[in-house]
Amino acid sequence: MSKKIVIVGGVAGGATAAARLRRLDEKSSIVMFERGEYISFANCGLPYYIGETIQQRNKLLVQTVPGMSKRFNLDIRNKTEVQSINREKKTVTVQHIESGETYEESYDVLILSPGAKPIQPPIPGIEADNIFTLRNVPDTDRIKHHVDVTKPAKATVIGGGFIGLEMAENLVERGVQVTVVEKSQQVMAPIDIEMAAFVHQELKDKGVELIVEDGVQAFEQDGKQLVLESGRTIDTDMTILSIGVQPENTLAKEAGLTLGKRGGIIVNEYLQTDDPAIYAVGDAIEVKDYVLGTPVMIPLAWPANRQGRIVANNIYGKEERYNGTLGTSIVKIFDYTVAATGLNEKFLSAHDVPYQVVHLHPASHAGYYPNAKQISIKLLFNPEKGNILGAQMVGKDGVDKRIDVVATAIKGNLTVEDLPDLELAYAPPFSSAKDPVNMAGYVATNVLHGDVNVVQWHEIDQIVENDGFLVDVRTPKEWDKGFINGAINIPLDELRQHLYALPKDKPIYVYCQVGLRGYLATRILNENGFQARNVDGGWKTYSTAHQLI
Amino acid sequence: MSKKIVIVGGVAGGATAAARLRRLDEKSSIVMFERGEYISFANCGLPYYIGETIQQRNKLLVQTVPGMSKRFNLDIRNKTEVQSINREKKTVTVQHIESGETYEESYDVLILSPGAKPIQPPIPGIEADNIFTLRNVPDTDRIKHHVDVTKPAKATVIGGGFIGLEMAENLVERGVQVTVVEKSQQVMAPIDIEMAAFVHQELKDKGVELIVEDGVQAFEQDGKQLVLESGRTIDTDMTILSIGVQPENTLAKEAGLTLGKRGGIIVNEYLQTDDPAIYAVGDAIEVKDYVLGTPVMIPLAWPANRQGRIVANNIYGKEERYNGTLGTSIVKIFDYTVAATGLNEKFLSAHDVPYQVVHLHPASHAGYYPNAKQISIKLLFNPEKGNILGAQMVGKDGVDKRIDVVATAIKGNLTVEDLPDLELAYAPPFSSAKDPVNMAGYVATNVLHGDVNVVQWHEIDQIVENDGFLVDVRTPKEWDKGFINGAINIPLDELRQHLYALPKDKPIYVYCQVGLRGYLATRILNENGFQARNVDGGWKTYSTAHQLI
Repeated sequence: MSKKIVIVGGVAGGATAAARLRRLDEKSSIVMFERGEYISFANCGLPYYIGETIQQRNKLLVQTVPGMSKRFNLDIRNKTEVQSINREKKTVTVQHIESGETYEESYDVLILSPGAKPIQPPIPGIEADNIFTLRNVPDTDRIKHHVDVTKPAKATVIGGGFIGLEMAENLVERGVQVTVVEKSQQVMAPIDIEMAAFVHQELKDKGVELIVEDGVQAFEQDGKQLVLESGRTIDTDMTILSIGVQPENTLAKEAGLTLGKRGGIIVNEYLQTDDPAIYAVGDAIEVKDYVLGTPVMIPLAWPANRQGRIVANNIYGKEERYNGTLGTSIVKIFDYTVAATGLNEKFLSAHDVPYQVVHLHPASHAGYYPNAKQISIKLLFNPEKGNILGAQMVGKDGVDKRIDVVATAIKGNLTVEDLPDLELAYAPPFSSAKDPVNMAGYVATNVLHGDVNVVQWHEIDQIVENDGFLVDVRTPKEWDKGFINGAINIPLDELRQHLYALPKDKPIYVYCQVGLRGYLATRILNENGFQARNVDGGWKTYSTAHQLI
Repeated sequence: MSKKIVIVGGVAGGATAAARLRRLDEKSSIVMFERGEYISFANCGLPYYIGETIQQRNKLLVQTVPGMSKRFNLDIRNKTEVQSINREKKTVTVQHIESGETYEESYDVLILSPGAKPIQPPIPGIEADNIFTLRNVPDTDRIKHHVDVTKPAKATVIGGGFIGLEMAENLVERGVQVTVVEKSQQVMAPIDIEMAAFVHQELKDKGVELIVEDGVQAFEQDGKQLVLESGRTIDTDMTILSIGVQPENTLAKEAGLTLGKRGGIIVNEYLQTDDPAIYAVGDAIEVKDYVLGTPVMIPLAWPANRQGRIVANNIYGKEERYNGTLGTSIVKIFDYTVAATGLNEKFLSAHDVPYQVVHLHPASHAGYYPNAKQISIKLLFNPEKGNILGAQMVGKDGVDKRIDVVATAIKGNLTVEDLPDLELAYAPPFSSAKDPVNMAGYVATNVLHGDVNVVQWHEIDQIVENDGFLVDVRTPKEWDKGFINGAINIPLDELRQHLYALPKDKPIYVYCQVGLRGYLATRILNENGFQARNVDGGWKTYSTAHQLI
């Protein structure tokens, strides 16, 4: 049952679908249209070529048109734009961009993989030629050429998401002084603000100026001056606009396919649009969030690739479901790795989903082996049953491993009670006998079972204001480096001798550096008849969130 | 319901149990006996202190007797040996090693955490003072002192397990020329021979001489000469004996507790011995293999710690089960990381457990981003249902992450069909859009579903001998570096044009470098009516196993 399959878009999902289709059937006719010159390029590598970490341009070209055509016996037509879908006739109308030639191509099955494009709001002056967006190889060439030739002293990045921060880092690598302007309170939307605070600090440490809660209202002087919404002006030699992407949905919309609220193409669990002959994949589609099933748009590489494969399987009758997107994401920001999976507190809180949260800061491997680094972990879970809702991690080493373990645990329907039971590989260069994920499980399970009550970093200032009783159980040396106002210092190992000094009639809020000694102190106090609550994540989370570090 | 709990052994499981017991109850009386001077030391760090990667000796002492006594309000009695258990009286008879003083201590609950000791066979000459075993801090001090003072030129390590190979590496770090003598065909028993072949190569590359299928029959000339079973003699300045460990079971045995075939203390799922007042944990107990439930002895840190915690919980009525040991293990061997989880092919084959196997060699992260390294992966699974039975990985980067993901997948009861669906974190410095674990899942699923037939590296020589038809689909440049005798070379991208030259009446064995192009070729051939089988793991697995690299 060989078919003629037409694919719109030759990157990520489209290219993956094409290769899989061919593996499933040698006889299919497979036509892949790509508007640009390049197919299957290394989207995620583009900033690193600008920063010269990736030195050879041809490394960005993972597959070439002749190479992929030959290997998979595909009819790849690049520089060719699909202009319309004629659903009744089952054809697409396409135009070769250079020649202007227009023709129709028929299909039995159509796969839409048009991707998403950078949002370019109608800001006055945005057409200046030192203002860039980054999506593809020509964009990359333009930005790199600008950096190579004009040797900018200053650059401004608008938007502190993945691409914005990767571009900030790579421009710093090129010796450019960078300012990041971010509309919300924090960079890196997938994580919550107290976790983003580590990134804010790192940006500062690396000489990047960060302006939050501000946006651009105008580009003036040929893009050499930015006027912010606050009225502040910034001189800059170039600007990267990375405030987000929007689905390339024109083709689908004009063809009458159903779109979601945010413009994503609606597909069923088999990734079929409301026209059974048309499938859609990648950044352009609306998917279900894996944890709650809420409709979401998640423009990432893993889902696009996975969907491309599944669509190919479904076209050949395998009936494979796409189970939703967890949104596992990761970014290197200078010396730090920042990663997230599942849902964050902002989302859960906004959607009134019950959750509990723990913060911890374990070491990436055994402390006695050189170069262990702290990993700051936030774990969100259902307060009744312990199902894992999401995790966020920031640190200099071993973050990628732990986020992948948690992402796997979520797909395995494990709860926080199962995390201590994960038998992870331990030798001193790699982990500890209790891995950070085991520890996260222990901490969360203690909270879940009520073995310890916690209070969060954002509740502390109110507690201080209301004359709450705070005990810092760190050593005097640690205390001297900074403490919560109004706290008293009783080192953990002296706590049992000082119980007489503590009140039994009101809550005692205990904290240490990262939460572990605070937990021990809380246990000691509760076992002795006090009402103790541990400050979750300790001084580390509190002070970082308040930028006291 | 406070209790008096006596713990025998103050390292790993014992120390963990003590700390947890105190957290659960402030009022318990907890007495912990330790025969040695040190409690809760960094067992796994000992070789690295000898090699001077860990420079300060006090880093090995994770907890001290006074420090831990104070923090957890424990009665820790080190240098004190428990000589017997008087089960009817519920007492132990102990002796203080230095004073010789003997007394009885009563218990409500007893926890045995005696550990395991290095096997020291009665080889003539074994008492020489340049022959060492490594278990604890005094052993470490002796070995390091010997290296520091005598500055040995040559050392011999007997036994190529974890400790043997870590000692080999650390002695090389100290400038010593090392020979490893291993009784079986391969080092690193947890992995299979074709995977161990990478380690054999790395040892050679780092100047370590490896002698396999040989053992020591005598130490002569005050330990300066080893006579091997083969008759070969080796001159050496020192010897590390690391041929394995055996459970410290004397106390349990004399108390009449049931032991397993290999001497491990038998416990139920709550880690209780056949005396309900006595629990046992760690290297001394027999556990159930997590995958099949077979009785096994697995002396590793993670299980000991986990068991210590569970025993404490059970003593306080939590009824928590120990679910068996997966045996996830990892070791750094010079530039390589070697890791395993679950069962290996040797075990499955010996126990007649049906299995299927795939090998692959994906890159640790996106190939276009610098410093990607090859990870060689072996995945074992049930040939009917796809349940994961075990995995082995060897490589220079990212091995620890992938073994942890697979270990987590096993605990989540995921099958190889679920591995492609793991949404792992991707950015170019960390992974690829299809992570190596996703790839392993794809490769295994293809085999499981019969989308590709594979043939294993160890079947090839027989196939060649029987004039099997072998096609190498690599480029001529790759072919020139080495190929399987009797194969012909048709590069993948020319295969469709050369179908006329291939036989339809007999199997065609296809191979490439790592298995991916071979898979594509197999699909092309099968779709065109040939009977093709892919050489699993390609030339890489075949040539490494045959030490042709």
